[in-house]
Amino acid sequence: MGDGTKTLRIGLAGLGTVGVSVIKSLVQNKNGPFFMDCQGVGVVAVSARNRARDRGVDLSPYRWYDDPAAMAAADDIDCVVELIGGAEGAAFDTVRTALAQGKHVVTANKALLATHGLELAETAEQRGVALAFEAAVAGGIPVIKTLREALVGNRVTKVAGILNGTCNFILTTMESYHFNGGERRARSAAAGDNSRPEGDNFAFTESLAEAQRLGYAEADPTSDIEGFDSAYKLAILSSLAFGTVIDFDGVHTEGISRVSLFDLKMADELGFRIKLLGVAELSDEGLEQRVQPTMVLKNGALGGVSGVTNALKITADMIGELTLVGPGAGGAATASAVLSDIADVAKGRVVRPFGIAGRSLKRAPRRKSSVHTGGFYIRVRVFDRPGVAAQVTRRMAEQGISLESILQKRDETAARIDPAGRSGAPVPVVLITYATTEDAVRTALERMQNDELLTEQPLLVRIERT
Amino acid sequence: MGDGTKTLRIGLAGLGTVGVSVIKSLVQNKNGPFFMDCQGVGVVAVSARNRARDRGVDLSPYRWYDDPAAMAAADDIDCVVELIGGAEGAAFDTVRTALAQGKHVVTANKALLATHGLELAETAEQRGVALAFEAAVAGGIPVIKTLREALVGNRVTKVAGILNGTCNFILTTMESYHFNGGERRARSAAAGDNSRPEGDNFAFTESLAEAQRLGYAEADPTSDIEGFDSAYKLAILSSLAFGTVIDFDGVHTEGISRVSLFDLKMADELGFRIKLLGVAELSDEGLEQRVQPTMVLKNGALGGVSGVTNALKITADMIGELTLVGPGAGGAATASAVLSDIADVAKGRVVRPFGIAGRSLKRAPRRKSSVHTGGFYIRVRVFDRPGVAAQVTRRMAEQGISLESILQKRDETAARIDPAGRSGAPVPVVLITYATTEDAVRTALERMQNDELLTEQPLLVRIERT
Repeated sequence: MGDGTKTLRIGLAGLGTVGVSVIKSLVQNKNGPFFMDCQGVGVVAVSARNRARDRGVDLSPYRWYDDPAAMAAADDIDCVVELIGGAEGAAFDTVRTALAQGKHVVTANKALLATHGLELAETAEQRGVALAFEAAVAGGIPVIKTLREALVGNRVTKVAGILNGTCNFILTTMESYHFNGGERRARSAAAGDNSRPEGDNFAFTESLAEAQRLGYAEADPTSDIEGFDSAYKLAILSSLAFGTVIDFDGVHTEGISRVSLFDLKMADELGFRIKLLGVAELSDEGLEQRVQPTMVLKNGALGGVSGVTNALKITADMIGELTLVGPGAGGAATASAVLSDIADVAKGRVVRPFGIAGRSLKRAPRRKSSVHTGGFYIRVRVFDRPGVAAQVTRRMAEQGISLESILQKRDETAARIDPAGRSGAPVPVVLITYATTEDAVRTALERMQNDELLTEQPLLVRIERT
Repeated sequence: MGDGTKTLRIGLAGLGTVGVSVIKSLVQNKNGPFFMDCQGVGVVAVSARNRARDRGVDLSPYRWYDDPAAMAAADDIDCVVELIGGAEGAAFDTVRTALAQGKHVVTANKALLATHGLELAETAEQRGVALAFEAAVAGGIPVIKTLREALVGNRVTKVAGILNGTCNFILTTMESYHFNGGERRARSAAAGDNSRPEGDNFAFTESLAEAQRLGYAEADPTSDIEGFDSAYKLAILSSLAFGTVIDFDGVHTEGISRVSLFDLKMADELGFRIKLLGVAELSDEGLEQRVQPTMVLKNGALGGVSGVTNALKITADMIGELTLVGPGAGGAATASAVLSDIADVAKGRVVRPFGIAGRSLKRAPRRKSSVHTGGFYIRVRVFDRPGVAAQVTRRMAEQGISLESILQKRDETAARIDPAGRSGAPVPVVLITYATTEDAVRTALERMQNDELLTEQPLLVRIERT
């Protein structure tokens, strides 16, 4: 039992918003109700790229290192908190050095874990130290602890989550263009910007810009909006949920950049929201991991999650369903997860990084995506000519796909593209399928493309009645 | 680090649905991904009141005790799992005996914890053993672990939860009378039962009966529907959230038996749901703990929680808000929490029961309910006579209470009471207040009662915009 006398000397690598928040909290919380049990816990050294930068926190009490790996090797460091980021380079060197020298590691680095997690976990186990990473997935929501410790008696069959706050903020902001009766759009038009190229996804572009303005998206938002950030996190969650070796390369990954305002509007009319959902399922046919725009029930556990909030829904044999909703990012929320890991280490609660020994993790075969059957939302854009709908539906029927509905609508959100609405101009057609396979849908769409029916790449969205 | 070699010999007291589920799971999960680390964990002895009862599980491998305290004292028991229930008697004896003899205890007993938690925790700490109780609150949702470990760096300011599945099932079932266009009611009338006394809350009575039929409510449902079960749980959560001594007697407790179909309908029209909510808040003015019917936003995190599902929303400085939603009861879900505690003990993760030493828990003063300001829903029933509304509103104004709205409606759900709808018969009047104190409202209602305006006791429901 943690008796408050243990000392844990921390070396902190990476002084961004999370790192600064960890330092502030450790200082402030010394007398908090729970950290009073961790009086011996404190930062002794820090490392970052730029020593000169003003971070709004007094760093003078801490020894400075330009090289975080050198800090990790220092004799008086018991625990390295790695907040550098990135799968390789300084972060990898620092963590590897620390573990090899028998030091505990607390990290928020999802890319590192998803890429080198098994190797690092095995080193940690050999040395009997912690490799803790609550902060790597879903910010302040304790998803790691829940899967690894709270659900230990369960067989988890599925995890489904909104794992990237940036994407969820963008999608929610795009929806507000629709739900606020075009008010945003009018504002944007009033700004005189009517120079966009045909087909430009203006709602996405503007929402991304807003995310960047608010600090929710980085200057280069690729990792977030193309789904890689979510894929790292999903790969880590899969491993914890199913006791399988992390398989990041096995995550089918699609981003949100092709989701348009029109699609969000259609989803709303159908009773859904479109979310960038990470879903991992283990079945007899193998492990399926996918990150892609997905329709979820508007009134379901995930449909109501808006803004930068994250959520994870876990399905397991004993508990049925458990949903955790909370802050997916932000300095303080992520620091909360880091502090949780630090307290566990300080109190002697060192656990195997993935719940069981790294060598005991199973290598699950990847489930073929052709196996999955479910409903799909398909949005194609076709020339508005007689007979087009018949050609589209014939191609679907050839693949044995039954349609729940087919909607051909004038896309009001793209009115600028063809203000005259003249016949022959591209119009969106939405197809909602009954249960079918993704392979069948993709084949049908390929045929349509060969027929030169489609004026742009179609959008395919899975429907999860969740 | 748990290395799989540790032995944990369990004595299980209480063989209801949870106990049987624990036994089954321990046998089945031996080869599960995570329990493989707990090979030495197993039940060696059991105890229950009735040995003869067929529980659908083979008990022959386990030694039988008629006296659970004797089992707790047996030399070959390392850990007692107490699933007897009740604050006193056999459960208390068993847990006290086990701890005194330096044995770990895992319990689902909220009444015991809420009543004797501090004393038991101090014994556990002295003996360096676990007193683990994840299963005591919110079934399969890891609320204890989250508050005690995951949010350790946070200052929690508020917890608000749906903590009793029976009540939530009843309220949700009652709503279905309204939302299903009276279909249930028609069915009930067709059954020829029109003999109810005037004023009978038939929707509540029938929903309770349905809960009992489905096994969600006990034969004597008092503890659930009068809020005591929720109050036990809230008292435990408060202690963990704020680092304060459990103060069960300080929980202001009201049940749901006076919530009528009319109230649920009014709530719906106003954009709310009525839930039996447990709310604990710590502020400079002290600790406030209350269990009472409360209006929550229909589309908020708690408004959508239906049936026997439980939910807890935690507000804290670093994470902002975190919401956990899952199964609040049921054999398997509760057993999941018990197994989580067993695994922690088996893997050497023994923590202080309340996060910090029992002697370090603060004794927070109780906040006076007169301090709280907020909006209220007040339903009175008055004789439908000229001037009544003026008298009611004057009594409110005298207490400085501003009304957001006043609704005088014919109560269609109580049409049987006065089919003729003749003037002078009692009619419900609903008052929605702006922020005010509960004391002011109660005073105004007392005055109305003295005026002999009211035909029955008024219903007062707090509004939480959550």
